[in-house]
Amino acid sequence: MANAQSAYELLLTRLREVALLRSTASLLSWDQEVLMPSRGVEHRGRQLAQIAALAHEKLTDKRVAEWLNDCESSRELTADPTSVAAVNLREIRRSHDQAIKVPESLVREFAETATLSKAQWAAARQARDFAAFRPWLTKMVALSRRKAECFGWAEDGEPWDALADDFEPKITARQIEEVFVPLRDRLVALNGQLLGVDSTPPDCFQGRHLSEEAMRRFVEYVAKQFGFDFSRGRLDTSTHPFCAGFEPNDVRMTTRFDELNPIEPLFSTMHETGHGIYNQGLPFEHHGTPMGESVSLGIHESQSRLWENQVGRSGAFWSWCAPRLREFFGAEADAVDARAVYASVNLVRPGFIRVEADEATYNLHIMLRFELERELMKGELDCVDLPQAWNRKFESYLGIVPPDDAVGCLQDIHWSQGAFGYFPSYALGNLYASQLFARAEADLPELDRQFERGQFGDLKAWLNENIHREGMRYRAGTLCERVTGEPLHAEPLLQHLERKLKPIYGL
Amino acid sequence: MANAQSAYELLLTRLREVALLRSTASLLSWDQEVLMPSRGVEHRGRQLAQIAALAHEKLTDKRVAEWLNDCESSRELTADPTSVAAVNLREIRRSHDQAIKVPESLVREFAETATLSKAQWAAARQARDFAAFRPWLTKMVALSRRKAECFGWAEDGEPWDALADDFEPKITARQIEEVFVPLRDRLVALNGQLLGVDSTPPDCFQGRHLSEEAMRRFVEYVAKQFGFDFSRGRLDTSTHPFCAGFEPNDVRMTTRFDELNPIEPLFSTMHETGHGIYNQGLPFEHHGTPMGESVSLGIHESQSRLWENQVGRSGAFWSWCAPRLREFFGAEADAVDARAVYASVNLVRPGFIRVEADEATYNLHIMLRFELERELMKGELDCVDLPQAWNRKFESYLGIVPPDDAVGCLQDIHWSQGAFGYFPSYALGNLYASQLFARAEADLPELDRQFERGQFGDLKAWLNENIHREGMRYRAGTLCERVTGEPLHAEPLLQHLERKLKPIYGL
Repeated sequence: MANAQSAYELLLTRLREVALLRSTASLLSWDQEVLMPSRGVEHRGRQLAQIAALAHEKLTDKRVAEWLNDCESSRELTADPTSVAAVNLREIRRSHDQAIKVPESLVREFAETATLSKAQWAAARQARDFAAFRPWLTKMVALSRRKAECFGWAEDGEPWDALADDFEPKITARQIEEVFVPLRDRLVALNGQLLGVDSTPPDCFQGRHLSEEAMRRFVEYVAKQFGFDFSRGRLDTSTHPFCAGFEPNDVRMTTRFDELNPIEPLFSTMHETGHGIYNQGLPFEHHGTPMGESVSLGIHESQSRLWENQVGRSGAFWSWCAPRLREFFGAEADAVDARAVYASVNLVRPGFIRVEADEATYNLHIMLRFELERELMKGELDCVDLPQAWNRKFESYLGIVPPDDAVGCLQDIHWSQGAFGYFPSYALGNLYASQLFARAEADLPELDRQFERGQFGDLKAWLNENIHREGMRYRAGTLCERVTGEPLHAEPLLQHLERKLKPIYGL
Repeated sequence: MANAQSAYELLLTRLREVALLRSTASLLSWDQEVLMPSRGVEHRGRQLAQIAALAHEKLTDKRVAEWLNDCESSRELTADPTSVAAVNLREIRRSHDQAIKVPESLVREFAETATLSKAQWAAARQARDFAAFRPWLTKMVALSRRKAECFGWAEDGEPWDALADDFEPKITARQIEEVFVPLRDRLVALNGQLLGVDSTPPDCFQGRHLSEEAMRRFVEYVAKQFGFDFSRGRLDTSTHPFCAGFEPNDVRMTTRFDELNPIEPLFSTMHETGHGIYNQGLPFEHHGTPMGESVSLGIHESQSRLWENQVGRSGAFWSWCAPRLREFFGAEADAVDARAVYASVNLVRPGFIRVEADEATYNLHIMLRFELERELMKGELDCVDLPQAWNRKFESYLGIVPPDDAVGCLQDIHWSQGAFGYFPSYALGNLYASQLFARAEADLPELDRQFERGQFGDLKAWLNENIHREGMRYRAGTLCERVTGEPLHAEPLLQHLERKLKPIYGL
């Protein structure tokens, strides 16, 4: 018993070292996206490869396997599968077993190539030049397929499953498909109804010039109101908004400014704030061990989408926020009233850009990416054919064809860094967000009235209590069931959309 | 022979790994000064301790000693002491022999405590509260003395020598003293003459409001004109301006803005640009090995002080710069003419802040710090007595007494991070700068006329050629002698000051 206990302590110490290295890698990546001068990319690739290899070495050390064995044979440590020790052991086992399947040379090559590839993607996207990025995408596809080969997949599975496990433990493409197919049909039907309406409400932001400086202050203000703690985090600017939680006391969000879409920084900030509040709310005492980590990307996305959509696209939020907008922007936000904005930010309009998509079309953006990345991983789609395949699917799902690849298959950063298997998390996030929020509304009947007064503390506390402070105690599905009483299903999302959108469209 | 060659390759590979880790540590520190949210400091301390320990482990590995022995017995590698291989071996031997004297636990504790202490210093400085910082200074003094004990010093030396070696290889306090004492007498005499003058020229920046935004654009413009390459670097803001060269393609400078001293950002930027140009000019092919590193801090400071003073406080520079100032600041810079600014930026006025000091009093700031840190390291001065000791010396050297510790012994970041033995590099930098610049003027008789036209390329190329691209080939003294034909001496600095200042003061 003493032996198991001391093995457990050694294991946690080791895991904290791995987490510490990864938090350093996270800063290196964050800095690459936000600040690094362009010519620094090769050196940055070497730095990231070095840290990735060191973390891999620490995690795959033979002693880790011995310590794990010692711990797993202890009833005391494992009797209650939701105890801190049992959860830590379950997850350390999982990541150790995965890590030993991948040779260090591949870990190094993957990290270094991903760093360079990301920079090539950013340049190619700006130049609207897919051909310039293609060799790098080809490399990342090949490296990812090699990684999938190392991990392996079930007999009835496929390479995509092996990679998605990193983001959504134990998920398979088949399971995703089972959720997506019926959802797609309902969404296409709903979109058909909404787009069939004769006159849509006007977009009250189109053509307005909201100054970047005022917008920066405004979105920080909203993030703060939501409960993001700026003494433990920052908001900066990057090409692709993201949130990196180095540790609960240092959480970095980014946004971006766009003259053509002046309200976007608000929505991307509300989105990242959801991630940021999750990261800041993780149990500090378990930091560096699985119990201090987030459940999965799907649950992470549920937090961002919940603040962005369930809160930020609600009528109650806008009755508080519209007057604030006028305070911050003065004449620039003239005649922006709550009802007009509410309709504007809920307009359903097929567009090219996923992160700017409305709630009703958003999941279609995910589905097409999911289908394409499955094919890429199977080797059934060649990178050279990606733009055409993208555009064809885009037309069939959304009825429009991207005019160029910058707003087509070049728009997202994910594949450039080898994050295949990542996209479905966004759709899962939408589903979880709706189901969790419905529960929160039932538990907290005053929510709407609170939002109208700019009070978000009760919602944040509810999320802190039910989701954030549990760390990785439960897998995503279990957590959802424990909190909402039901397994994940699509009804709450569809109801949320129909109840909100139909009245706006007079249906 | 083949054996020595392959040992040499292994050694260089290892050194590049160490340098890569250190460049990551450098980003972690840079981020702490520039961006990190305040609550992130404890985690940052752990990150830096981890990286320092990993680098130490790699450098003190027994195989490094074996490789060094193999190489040192090879005539081919060492025959020419200024060959790339011989220089690399000389410096790797030096750092390996130093590193093995310090236990890893001390390396770790030093790095972690320094990180926390730096943050405590920044808070205490802002609160003008020395007592709040004292326990941390006491810790850093104790840790530094322990480090000095590990290194050891010559029989006729002292603990300070052991620490200064990190910044200025092989220097001793006694050598510094031999340079400083006669210099001090001449400077005090010169200052007496200048301060005895009845009427001094007016300060043409006093009371002006130069907007931060325009100043930011302006100082970037000047840095660019000097030759700093922004595709390989950045300029940001921090409490204490500094320059960190992660690698020649990613060099980060900082400045700071101060309403009471509106022109300071220009001078601090010109200073850091000198460092930045040196870092960007190091031989890229040797990056990660000693041949790709700078000679010493004294030589590094010679580059910053040269651009700040020999260029940035020259009449020729201001005949180009004054009209630019009016372009960037419009009415705010009204009636700023070249001659008035030239006199203003060369005013000799005892002040409290080292980094804002004029050229004639600057070295006195260094001398008092040097004397105090020697005493702290010997254990003859207790931290509790530091403010009083500082103020007493300040009065005796500069004739004024700091009204509080924020502008007294709390003003500099150095001691908070355990950088004892660092300050004299600044004075050495002034001496080297004058001697090198005199040589550059002799080699390039058109310099003044070029500055008047805003052309700085010839000077930069001269520095690139004579200083930067030599990396660590020569020790500081040898480099100086090779370039200028004479060992370092104080005459060029004194002549530079007298020739410039006396006419301004009508002497």
